[in-house]
Amino acid sequence: MDYLYYPQPVSDLIAAFSRLPGVGPKTAGRLAFYLLRHPDQAGELTQAVTKALQDIKQCTVCGNYTDIDPCKICSGERRDRTLLCVVEQPRDVIALEKTGEYKGLYHVLHGVLSPMEGIGPEQLNLSPLFHRLEGVQEVVLAVNPTVEGEATSLYISKLLKPIEIKVTKIAHGLPVGGDLEYADEVTIARALEGRRQL
Amino acid sequence: MDYLYYPQPVSDLIAAFSRLPGVGPKTAGRLAFYLLRHPDQAGELTQAVTKALQDIKQCTVCGNYTDIDPCKICSGERRDRTLLCVVEQPRDVIALEKTGEYKGLYHVLHGVLSPMEGIGPEQLNLSPLFHRLEGVQEVVLAVNPTVEGEATSLYISKLLKPIEIKVTKIAHGLPVGGDLEYADEVTIARALEGRRQL
Repeated sequence: MDYLYYPQPVSDLIAAFSRLPGVGPKTAGRLAFYLLRHPDQAGELTQAVTKALQDIKQCTVCGNYTDIDPCKICSGERRDRTLLCVVEQPRDVIALEKTGEYKGLYHVLHGVLSPMEGIGPEQLNLSPLFHRLEGVQEVVLAVNPTVEGEATSLYISKLLKPIEIKVTKIAHGLPVGGDLEYADEVTIARALEGRRQL
Repeated sequence: MDYLYYPQPVSDLIAAFSRLPGVGPKTAGRLAFYLLRHPDQAGELTQAVTKALQDIKQCTVCGNYTDIDPCKICSGERRDRTLLCVVEQPRDVIALEKTGEYKGLYHVLHGVLSPMEGIGPEQLNLSPLFHRLEGVQEVVLAVNPTVEGEATSLYISKLLKPIEIKVTKIAHGLPVGGDLEYADEVTIARALEGRRQL
């Protein structure tokens, strides 16, 4: 209804932007008209999208997005190959890399178990994980602490149990700079649960 | 620096999104990874951008974006051809059309006078305005009430003076549902200035 007065190609463009996550109709309109005013940038954008979709594949080893296979991390010579960190999404790899603290390898699941959405173990990049455990001494589960994430962690840890590899999970608790008063109950409960002796 | 760990095509895509107005690096990252996960939608988006840039031109009469020339409004049979409304951007046309109150024609300037940015009368769709005044009885200036907008309104009204066409400006004042307490001084001053007897 909102697009009643736009020429068809403009309303199609607004609709295409609207379907992106976090982009409402107002933002979509702003972006569409911006590109119409700046054809150079529109060209750059379509080229960047096309090129990324063409060149970026999933690494056949870890499942991370990469333009070379295996990816730079999997083929990195300075990587600690005894450590394997399991994450949900390629962006989680970046988040961990930015800390500069982790030097091991990664395994990207591309999702979590979610029976509601019909996502079972077969829909995830899960079985390749079990074919790359040679030499690995510790699997670090860094899946997000959502209900589905926790279930996924549990599922993986159970599968890994017979293989006798150390399985750890990243700590959940109060974020640094966080405030007890404003933290939710579950986070505080997790922080208590994970308390350590000083 | 933020994109240090992304493969080049991904960081190029994030950079292309970041250059859009109102899109920060976080949002750009989110959009880029969303498109990598949803290649169908990425294809739709690039197609929509390409098609819009290919098909959408400025109407040779009013300057509005259109896929047919002259545009639907300029060639509309039910339009009041004695009324001509001057606006800054194509999106302002839509805003006015949505009210359903205005039945006249439009003229889109594609900007306002801005000496700071080197935008003079020649950079705007201004001179065609003076070649389409035959039969027009009233020019309504609906340029945004910014400093540049006001200067542009003044400039146009001065040029129109010798032609003896009625020139009006849309009212500025408190928005409907607005609150005196939270309105800025200039808006309140304008509202006072434009007061009417009941």
